[in-house]
Amino acid sequence: MRVLVLILSLIGLAYSSVEENWESIDNRDVPDWYDKAKVGIFIHWGLFSVPGFDSEWIWHEWRTDHKKEVEDFISKNYPPDFTYQEFASQLTGEFLNATQWADLLKRAGAKYVVLTSKHHEGFTLWPSKYTYSFNSVDQGPHRDIVKEVGEAVKAAGLKYGLYHSLLEWYHPLYVADQANGTSYFVDQKIYPEMVELVNTYKPEIVWSDGEWEMPDTYWKSTKFLAWLFNESPVKDTVLVNDRWGSNVTCLHGDILTCTDRYNPGYLLPKKWENAMTIDWHSWGFRRNSNIDEYATTKELIELLIETVACGGNILINVGPTKEGHIAPIFQERLLQFGEWLSVNGEAIYESNPWTKYQNDTLTSGVWYTQKENSTYVSFLNWPQTGVLELEAATQLFTTSSEVYILDSYQKLSWVKAEGIVSVELPDRASVYSNDAWVLKIQH
Amino acid sequence: MRVLVLILSLIGLAYSSVEENWESIDNRDVPDWYDKAKVGIFIHWGLFSVPGFDSEWIWHEWRTDHKKEVEDFISKNYPPDFTYQEFASQLTGEFLNATQWADLLKRAGAKYVVLTSKHHEGFTLWPSKYTYSFNSVDQGPHRDIVKEVGEAVKAAGLKYGLYHSLLEWYHPLYVADQANGTSYFVDQKIYPEMVELVNTYKPEIVWSDGEWEMPDTYWKSTKFLAWLFNESPVKDTVLVNDRWGSNVTCLHGDILTCTDRYNPGYLLPKKWENAMTIDWHSWGFRRNSNIDEYATTKELIELLIETVACGGNILINVGPTKEGHIAPIFQERLLQFGEWLSVNGEAIYESNPWTKYQNDTLTSGVWYTQKENSTYVSFLNWPQTGVLELEAATQLFTTSSEVYILDSYQKLSWVKAEGIVSVELPDRASVYSNDAWVLKIQH
Amino acid sequence: MRVLVLILSLIGLAYSSVEENWESIDNRDVPDWYDKAKVGIFIHWGLFSVPGFDSEWIWHEWRTDHKKEVEDFISKNYPPDFTYQEFASQLTGEFLNATQWADLLKRAGAKYVVLTSKHHEGFTLWPSKYTYSFNSVDQGPHRDIVKEVGEAVKAAGLKYGLYHSLLEWYHPLYVADQANGTSYFVDQKIYPEMVELVNTYKPEIVWSDGEWEMPDTYWKSTKFLAWLFNESPVKDTVLVNDRWGSNVTCLHGDILTCTDRYNPGYLLPKKWENAMTIDWHSWGFRRNSNIDEYATTKELIELLIETVACGGNILINVGPTKEGHIAPIFQERLLQFGEWLSVNGEAIYESNPWTKYQNDTLTSGVWYTQKENSTYVSFLNWPQTGVLELEAATQLFTTSSEVYILDSYQKLSWVKAEGIVSVELPDRASVYSNDAWVLKIQH
Amino acid sequence: MRVLVLILSLIGLAYSSVEENWESIDNRDVPDWYDKAKVGIFIHWGLFSVPGFDSEWIWHEWRTDHKKEVEDFISKNYPPDFTYQEFASQLTGEFLNATQWADLLKRAGAKYVVLTSKHHEGFTLWPSKYTYSFNSVDQGPHRDIVKEVGEAVKAAGLKYGLYHSLLEWYHPLYVADQANGTSYFVDQKIYPEMVELVNTYKPEIVWSDGEWEMPDTYWKSTKFLAWLFNESPVKDTVLVNDRWGSNVTCLHGDILTCTDRYNPGYLLPKKWENAMTIDWHSWGFRRNSNIDEYATTKELIELLIETVACGGNILINVGPTKEGHIAPIFQERLLQFGEWLSVNGEAIYESNPWTKYQNDTLTSGVWYTQKENSTYVSFLNWPQTGVLELEAATQLFTTSSEVYILDSYQKLSWVKAEGIVSVELPDRASVYSNDAWVLKIQH
Repeated sequence: MRVLVLILSLIGLAYSSVEENWESIDNRDVPDWYDKAKVGIFIHWGLFSVPGFDSEWIWHEWRTDHKKEVEDFISKNYPPDFTYQEFASQLTGEFLNATQWADLLKRAGAKYVVLTSKHHEGFTLWPSKYTYSFNSVDQGPHRDIVKEVGEAVKAAGLKYGLYHSLLEWYHPLYVADQANGTSYFVDQKIYPEMVELVNTYKPEIVWSDGEWEMPDTYWKSTKFLAWLFNESPVKDTVLVNDRWGSNVTCLHGDILTCTDRYNPGYLLPKKWENAMTIDWHSWGFRRNSNIDEYATTKELIELLIETVACGGNILINVGPTKEGHIAPIFQERLLQFGEWLSVNGEAIYESNPWTKYQNDTLTSGVWYTQKENSTYVSFLNWPQTGVLELEAATQLFTTSSEVYILDSYQKLSWVKAEGIVSVELPDRASVYSNDAWVLKIQH
Repeated sequence: MRVLVLILSLIGLAYSSVEENWESIDNRDVPDWYDKAKVGIFIHWGLFSVPGFDSEWIWHEWRTDHKKEVEDFISKNYPPDFTYQEFASQLTGEFLNATQWADLLKRAGAKYVVLTSKHHEGFTLWPSKYTYSFNSVDQGPHRDIVKEVGEAVKAAGLKYGLYHSLLEWYHPLYVADQANGTSYFVDQKIYPEMVELVNTYKPEIVWSDGEWEMPDTYWKSTKFLAWLFNESPVKDTVLVNDRWGSNVTCLHGDILTCTDRYNPGYLLPKKWENAMTIDWHSWGFRRNSNIDEYATTKELIELLIETVACGGNILINVGPTKEGHIAPIFQERLLQFGEWLSVNGEAIYESNPWTKYQNDTLTSGVWYTQKENSTYVSFLNWPQTGVLELEAATQLFTTSSEVYILDSYQKLSWVKAEGIVSVELPDRASVYSNDAWVLKIQH
Repeated sequence: MRVLVLILSLIGLAYSSVEENWESIDNRDVPDWYDKAKVGIFIHWGLFSVPGFDSEWIWHEWRTDHKKEVEDFISKNYPPDFTYQEFASQLTGEFLNATQWADLLKRAGAKYVVLTSKHHEGFTLWPSKYTYSFNSVDQGPHRDIVKEVGEAVKAAGLKYGLYHSLLEWYHPLYVADQANGTSYFVDQKIYPEMVELVNTYKPEIVWSDGEWEMPDTYWKSTKFLAWLFNESPVKDTVLVNDRWGSNVTCLHGDILTCTDRYNPGYLLPKKWENAMTIDWHSWGFRRNSNIDEYATTKELIELLIETVACGGNILINVGPTKEGHIAPIFQERLLQFGEWLSVNGEAIYESNPWTKYQNDTLTSGVWYTQKENSTYVSFLNWPQTGVLELEAATQLFTTSSEVYILDSYQKLSWVKAEGIVSVELPDRASVYSNDAWVLKIQH
Repeated sequence: MRVLVLILSLIGLAYSSVEENWESIDNRDVPDWYDKAKVGIFIHWGLFSVPGFDSEWIWHEWRTDHKKEVEDFISKNYPPDFTYQEFASQLTGEFLNATQWADLLKRAGAKYVVLTSKHHEGFTLWPSKYTYSFNSVDQGPHRDIVKEVGEAVKAAGLKYGLYHSLLEWYHPLYVADQANGTSYFVDQKIYPEMVELVNTYKPEIVWSDGEWEMPDTYWKSTKFLAWLFNESPVKDTVLVNDRWGSNVTCLHGDILTCTDRYNPGYLLPKKWENAMTIDWHSWGFRRNSNIDEYATTKELIELLIETVACGGNILINVGPTKEGHIAPIFQERLLQFGEWLSVNGEAIYESNPWTKYQNDTLTSGVWYTQKENSTYVSFLNWPQTGVLELEAATQLFTTSSEVYILDSYQKLSWVKAEGIVSVELPDRASVYSNDAWVLKIQH
């Protein structure tokens, strides 16, 4: 008997083990919490939060792209020869309260949070053994931000993901590797750093980025992922995105993110994510941003509806200030977004796309999701006539179909005629939301 | 006849001279632009914008009130023995673009702007001869902010007012005067400084503050005002508020401001102003403010309507960041406020209170204003019934009365019965505003 | 008889009152401690100590003289638009220990110490009521330096003098006075400030400077001095120098200082002072000074001997670092200087010049002083022959004259012949000093 | 023929090749310039130069030893939570002119210069690929100091050595290695960094330090040295000291340094070095040092004479300021030291110890060196009698021996009697030096 168990165990191990190739990695059973979650929040915080100007790419635009606006900004406001790294001591974070962050993000309707543990600049928000003196404990806030945020996020019942940039623009080992065809940067810096990150903070998503200049073979991505899925402390629960090499992005991994603000508009065969920003121009906080550069709450809800209808999750980015505060404008957007979800979330969370149609063929701004024996019709424009006309969904309506509006849960009357279903909406003044509404068709 | 006119003119001139007493000052003909303007914007910027914590009173709460939260903040984030004055070099103002400010404030519907030329801290936003090395040219932004903002505000067609604090909490001459009954602070600092301010920047409002610890005799207020109204370069156009001495506030001057956020709720015999803030807790920018501490756009519109109906002007405060930027949350409030005014401003600008009633006696949230042969009924709640009932205004309705809703300028039907006028509102979905609406009763 | 005394006393008091004119001021009885003291130390400390570059005139050379070296230094090391006043928060003084200063200066042989209470920059080292927020309590060290140094200096048994600059290069009231012929700067700033300084710190010397652009009538100097000598708390003990107006310097006052490093080389009829520096190029500390720019100990002793022989006092300047430390090179000079004085001071302290000759007519580097029945012959070069020849002093030698060398107090033999006295010096190896030696001729 | 050459080459290579063990390393032919040089200057510059307090060990004393004086200093002068690494941006070096350094050090009589390329803190003075963002190019001076100093030193005709600390107190990889028995720190950081340092800057001395906590096997010292001596670009010219492992120091290597300020007082069989400081208390600059903490010139010369007589070289340390300036007190000591050498250097440079005696057996303060057919007698005290008595050297004197004093090169008379040679010194006043003198006995 014990022998049999042993044999089965061995077989089990053999079967469950992920091999160091993409086919094997892609065939892994992916944890299902992610697809159900639909809504995540992305947090970009780093040295770029200190100048708070242009974007989180400011260093690159200053030193490599020689963007005039950035060069002028630096030369006008800092001493000659100032370096980007000297922002480190100014990333003070005195108002960074991770519990307040988590509470806010939960109220925003998020089910997971992804933090930039390290962006392309190379400054780590945890005391990495591989980034001595250029991390958030040694300079700046003097705190292990990855740990603090992780504990608060998990305590709030949310999943915790970690963004990690493979490349570091100006890391001399990386620069040398590119020039010489070597791999010291990966072997001595990136690979052990990622292992350290996973072992220490046990993230539920490893959200890789900065892969584009080199192939997966350079990054040793399949080796890392095999370790992650076979041996790491999160091997059974973790998910990863697709940015693991210039030849891999948008092809492999658990979640396709493809490009920033990826939003195909139709159903994809594979799980994907729309990572986007509230500030249209930057992922990092900008100290001089203007209101017309921010997505409205309505725009956020529209993107959510469209994304979920097409099988994606939305990952909405906020950039806290250098003091670690999430500015009121972000708070407002997030809370209004969360308020909408608190009323209409039934159509979003744990829903599935309707494989036949994602949006209505007649009325624009109408998107479909499904769950169990219900279909949800989210619509973005309140018709002046007070009647919503649907064409794609016509076949779903039977005599026993009942239609409700989620906002007030009033039961609505409808008629089917000439291939079109017309739903009589309630008085607009009796409905809470201003931005979008959801009908539930119960079969 | 011409001789007589000349004589009367001369007498008039002689008579028009303001004497150094309140009766004479109060009898002066006040320029009429102010009452027509209704909407002003207050800007608080100073060293308090650097810590951006607690409020613009942070220095006093730290050093005098020993407010624990402030003491903790300072001791946790600054070196031992740090002084408030050392914030000066950090008031960088690198994003302060006065033209952008003026453009924004004009879009907010403001007709005048009041800037804190100097707050209780004593740091002047202009290169005052009487505040050597503790002003915005000698430290911090290295710019004459009073001048820059003034030029931009006037170029935008707005009136320009200057806030000025009489007291300076910790000025040693002031402290000594209080202890010794002397008046060096006023004679050598405050009085010449105010003259310099007026002569240099020609403000259209002198908005005095910081008067409360000493009577007008100490401040030499009547002497200053006589100079201002008789001799200064703005003698014919300038207005002043009422904060000119502990015994004067809320009694004398062109405009009564009484207390911060003054809002009596009924018609006052004298022109008054409701100076209030968008951030409920502070006039200066707070780096750690949260969205629930900000007035909503609806609240701002409510206060506007109420204030104007009772004969007041509203002076809405914004606190730019230490970089000189007006944060997006302020921009959003101001623009939405301005958007409402662009539709409904007819009921506000150049209007008069209805002396008989200010608000309706039957339906709450309904306020009246008048202009020429129209009465305006501003209402804050859209009735579920779609019918607005008015009692106070009943007598105004004659058979020829026509009623319009300003939002869409639709003509509405109404009936008068049993002392009540019932106005049939249009379909809610056809109306633009969400926060408040205005009916115009044309006689 | 007693009545007569009383009457004379009253007359005396009446007569002793100093009037507001130079004749009366110059006729005052001057306290005699100063002439006996001979050796003072000057301390220059202020905002110029922060850049520690060029000299204490760096601001003027930067902004007015446009000295290229200074402009380059500023533009290379500070952000654009940086201002001189922003050095204030960096004048930290963390190592400023006034008791250690006083101990060192006493060991240097000084009998008095003069501190720059305020230099031409206008930053005061005490919390002047007339220099709000631009003083050493409000910014920088956060301490009352004038008080601390005064207490320590007096506790060490030394006299305490205060340097004070009348002009302030860029004080707007001063600039305006010069343009307009007004006197606000003196009336409201300088005059009350000097009164405050004297009343608070009771200096024993008021060492005025910065007088040269305006006459004494502008500075109200005679009025101030009449107050100082008739009414101030130090009226009976205080001395003043001569820098009280462009028309006064080198003519009036208790002590003539004339120009910096004034050293006439012959006996003056009036008491004078040689104010000079150890760092030849600067009164303020220079962070980049080199050893060849410092006076050697021998040079200091030479200047001392020459100065005292001609009736002057020497005021040797040190410039502490911005941290408030007197650098080792200054310590070394001062202590070696003091060591020489501890052996040879008998020829210096409380001595008088020899009115007939100040230096020898035959041998160069030989200077005379007198006290009671002794004449002192200080010589700067040890003759290779071992014999010192004197001509001017020949007449002083009688058969009973005894000659000693102060260093070892050996009695020396001498011969007089052909109008020359030849003194046989002891073996050079038996003598302590290396820099200068003193013979005492006892009559 | 070609075959023979090849064989000989192979043999040559085999013979000259150093193996990875101490016996082989110690048997290497050491370049002879070092023994001839006798005098080197050590330069300590790093982040410790910024606080300039306590010593270059300040970080360790603060964080590990909890030295009260240091803890108090930090807490009194920096914000809470300040970290040592945040000194980096303040290591400005604006006055660091390597050519001026080299010129000064050459005038001091130095033949080689050793710079701290990296001290125990880990901050590198060159842009090390292995110390990203914590080096002198990325923060602070923004310059490659190792390069600049090297070029200037070599241009001045001096040899260039690089100090390098193996350990880094708080490097997390090092800390982890110690805890876990691993060697990541050496493999990925230290070893490649040293190779980079040697390849890039081609030092003529590799002056290792920070070895004491771990044995040479951990540091891979023999492997590195075999590479250094066999393959590196400086394989034929470089020397190394002895600090290569806790079990190696004072035993192996080209130069024994044993402990700081090592000075055995007798002849050692192996070449050694006395590394010592002018500031007795610190290798790094101290902003609050006092003159009594500095070695006098006489003490420096004494140590030089003693060290060279016993077969050592002296390595005199200076600590430049954070601005990169060598303070005047150091300049004075170095120049006076160099001046002595310019007169007496014949007894020092390229000399050999006298193997029989190092110092005289009768008269203290008398030390011997030799060169060709001369013996040099350096004496530190000028005898009161004018006669120098020698016992140890008696046997060296023959009738043809001639004695000179180097200072003035006067020929001196001498007598030998009762086993003692008595040399008649010239008149003390005719001799230049004050600190020490040298007799040359020519055989």
